[in-house]
Amino acid sequence: MRILFISLFLQFIAKNNANSIPKLDMAKDFTTREENYSQWYNELVTKADLAESSAVRGCMVIKPYGYAIWEAMQGALDKMFKDTGHQNAYFPLFIPKSFFSKEADHVEGFAKECAVVTHYRLKNAEDGSGVVVDDDAKLEEELIVRPTSETIIWDTYKKWIQSYRDLPLLINQWANVVRWEMRTRLFLRTAEFLWQEGHTAHATREEAVKEAETMVNVYADFAENFMAVPVIKGLKSPNERFAGALETYCIEALMQDGKALQAGTSHFLGQNFAKAFDVKFLNKENKQDYVWATSWGVSTRLMGALIMSHSDDHGLVIPPKLAPIQVAIVPIFRKQEQLATISEKVDLIVKELRAKGISVKFDDRDTQKPGWKFSEYEFKGVPVRLAIGPRDLENGTVEVARRDTLEKEVKEMDGIADYIEQLLKDIQENLFQKALRRREEMTQTADTWDEFKDIIKNKGGFVLAHWDGTSETEQRIKEETKATIRAIPMGDDFKEEGTCIYSGKPSTQRVYFALSY
Amino acid sequence: MRILFISLFLQFIAKNNANSIPKLDMAKDFTTREENYSQWYNELVTKADLAESSAVRGCMVIKPYGYAIWEAMQGALDKMFKDTGHQNAYFPLFIPKSFFSKEADHVEGFAKECAVVTHYRLKNAEDGSGVVVDDDAKLEEELIVRPTSETIIWDTYKKWIQSYRDLPLLINQWANVVRWEMRTRLFLRTAEFLWQEGHTAHATREEAVKEAETMVNVYADFAENFMAVPVIKGLKSPNERFAGALETYCIEALMQDGKALQAGTSHFLGQNFAKAFDVKFLNKENKQDYVWATSWGVSTRLMGALIMSHSDDHGLVIPPKLAPIQVAIVPIFRKQEQLATISEKVDLIVKELRAKGISVKFDDRDTQKPGWKFSEYEFKGVPVRLAIGPRDLENGTVEVARRDTLEKEVKEMDGIADYIEQLLKDIQENLFQKALRRREEMTQTADTWDEFKDIIKNKGGFVLAHWDGTSETEQRIKEETKATIRAIPMGDDFKEEGTCIYSGKPSTQRVYFALSY
Repeated sequence: MRILFISLFLQFIAKNNANSIPKLDMAKDFTTREENYSQWYNELVTKADLAESSAVRGCMVIKPYGYAIWEAMQGALDKMFKDTGHQNAYFPLFIPKSFFSKEADHVEGFAKECAVVTHYRLKNAEDGSGVVVDDDAKLEEELIVRPTSETIIWDTYKKWIQSYRDLPLLINQWANVVRWEMRTRLFLRTAEFLWQEGHTAHATREEAVKEAETMVNVYADFAENFMAVPVIKGLKSPNERFAGALETYCIEALMQDGKALQAGTSHFLGQNFAKAFDVKFLNKENKQDYVWATSWGVSTRLMGALIMSHSDDHGLVIPPKLAPIQVAIVPIFRKQEQLATISEKVDLIVKELRAKGISVKFDDRDTQKPGWKFSEYEFKGVPVRLAIGPRDLENGTVEVARRDTLEKEVKEMDGIADYIEQLLKDIQENLFQKALRRREEMTQTADTWDEFKDIIKNKGGFVLAHWDGTSETEQRIKEETKATIRAIPMGDDFKEEGTCIYSGKPSTQRVYFALSY
Repeated sequence: MRILFISLFLQFIAKNNANSIPKLDMAKDFTTREENYSQWYNELVTKADLAESSAVRGCMVIKPYGYAIWEAMQGALDKMFKDTGHQNAYFPLFIPKSFFSKEADHVEGFAKECAVVTHYRLKNAEDGSGVVVDDDAKLEEELIVRPTSETIIWDTYKKWIQSYRDLPLLINQWANVVRWEMRTRLFLRTAEFLWQEGHTAHATREEAVKEAETMVNVYADFAENFMAVPVIKGLKSPNERFAGALETYCIEALMQDGKALQAGTSHFLGQNFAKAFDVKFLNKENKQDYVWATSWGVSTRLMGALIMSHSDDHGLVIPPKLAPIQVAIVPIFRKQEQLATISEKVDLIVKELRAKGISVKFDDRDTQKPGWKFSEYEFKGVPVRLAIGPRDLENGTVEVARRDTLEKEVKEMDGIADYIEQLLKDIQENLFQKALRRREEMTQTADTWDEFKDIIKNKGGFVLAHWDGTSETEQRIKEETKATIRAIPMGDDFKEEGTCIYSGKPSTQRVYFALSY
């Protein structure tokens, strides 16, 4: 490998042409999607420095590069939440065990696999072997590390809400949560994960329903316009609903392997939590009524959706709007004087790009060769890479490589900042369109049970099929094919008389089935 | 009260002059600092909607208004960290119990009063009374909810560091931590709190020391230029050092009651954690060496410092750079038509202010009276409040009230945005100068033990006194007066021969003593 590189590099020097720079392929020992999609994902997450497993079972370390993408997501979402009138707040990490028992469905869904704090002190072991739990420091009531915060928040809202004047309460929390998952995968399913959870309180059912719908629309907007991930919006079937919700709205994305991924949910909780925590308000008619609620959340799971939507066998592909580095600039030089001349020119480009709000990294390290750098930025999904060598300086040109199509072209240096600004928009749009085309190709309708089974088994993707609306049928379909209803699309466009593919009973619309993460 | 208000309001209407608007005093049932400083603080935090106690012992709820101030702090600090080359990442909430035993001093300091997770599952109680801990789901090794993350992070760094090329590693984490404090106070000392913890790794001792110093300087810069809180920078005595550090740098602020508050610390950890977790690197001379470390952090405790530094008997005072609302505008109107005319004018002012990056709230609610609003914004520490009534429209004027001095003046509407922009800067500066003057007045030197005891007992504040440098003497002084060494100032300016006020032994410099939070 090293010899190959040197020989290629010598070729380059002879030609002194940035276009002929060889690429040291970081993706060389990298499993392809075709070979093993699951392994491809795991390798990508760790090799691209996004995250890794920690010493604590099921808990991940989010590395700086991965965290920078999450920060970009947070920034965009936080702005959208604030633009729709929400404020951030912070509620305790711990929830008294008894709180979970107050809402009957919720306890079944959430108070089972969780981290339980039973003691509040350690002491030195008598045999000097380290520290042991101090049995004298046992909590009277165990505390649960929050798997979600409805209970502790509604216990708090009770103090904040007296009259309709205190409503609506539109609050969001950025936090870590813990669910003791047995089988974990980086970003997709971890014991601890980062998320945001919105918890709102309203005077009327209509207003709460509207809020839940607003927020699923915000999620869809974010997924499509920032992540470049097309999503299906719809309702969850009762089987898949949030524990304690009357209705769960969701967005579902389709990964390249044909499996669906739930990317965000928004719940209309009715008056369930208000009743469980006795939160009443004086309405405009001067009568006491229970408060209406919603909750909604997205998590670091979005990182998994982002990675699996766009990346390829060459590594990560990050849409420009979420890329920590949007443009990487690699100077091609042998001598320090060449670097100095190149740097002068590059500094101007960097300045122009930054003035446009574009994040740029000028990689002038002399400890790594250009080929290594090309490979690095390609693997890490940097949307645009520029290369500038002495010949380019003479010709007033620059080599522009785009990560989405892997195309390279030589452009005039004049006006390059404007060109790149537009190129980043084009890449963002292209990634979305590509993902959309893939989803469309992978969305099929099935009218018979055999057809349904065949698609699920051999092709994957979304299957639009009629369903009789019962949990029993959904359960049977799941047992036989592992496919579940991912979303029940809303709106008249989807209304269509038909018969359930499984039971043959009448149905009024098709729903989306798929295998899922 | 109500009658008084109505009568005053009628007076206003008669005169139609914004200057004569009566103030409904929210601070009426509010304890003064003179009466009871501690109670004043507690009332202020809850009444100003900053935070409150939760159902979980020692854990607080940070309310939206308080959290918005914390977000402003985070934003400014995060930028300063990034500008000094740091990146954010995220490490697990849980730490295996055995990790604490690896660093001898650290285990003594941190692995005692903490939240211990012993089980990972609950089950339905057999008697149907709720959920109980499932004894079958006992963890093999208990997990500790992080009180600080040195151990889990150094366990991770071991995988990231092989050679000097991997150094320095400059990483920060924004996170929640838990220390099982027995006596808690909102923001100042809570079982769970929010903070940032920087953890850096270096190839040389010099570089690590420099990093620790850089970060204490960043903290001092932030405290003085954003919080408007003057701080003393210095070293901690061995007694007060971080558990596991060779040196702890700190910033200390003086509260209005004459007690010091530790506002931030930066630790030079030497090779202690590298040795405990076996983190070696190949240095430039091709030899294996242990990595050098620092850690540094500030927490929601800063909120306590901010509140206690500037606020008064009328409520909160927030420095403009951290105020969630910098300017509140209150229209004075009787009829909707008046509001419409006022709004037209106000909209222009709002636009101009926002264009300058100033956050404005135009409070046009008709459910609350102007006097109530004045009182509300005063109590919540909004730096500038404008009032505009029909007479102002006629005269082309606006009433400007500043929170720091409680002064009001009538200004020309023309050029008001420029005026306010400058006024916010003046208020920021004035708050800092006021706090600085107070600290200077409350900093005294003591040359004898009687003098020392007298100041600590009767006046409070910082006492600059000679100390013999031994832990024994510091311990005795603490036992007799409750005062501790808050900081050992650095630099030649502080060098001065003298004798220890307690032991009479020789000393080379004065150090800062004070009672503290």
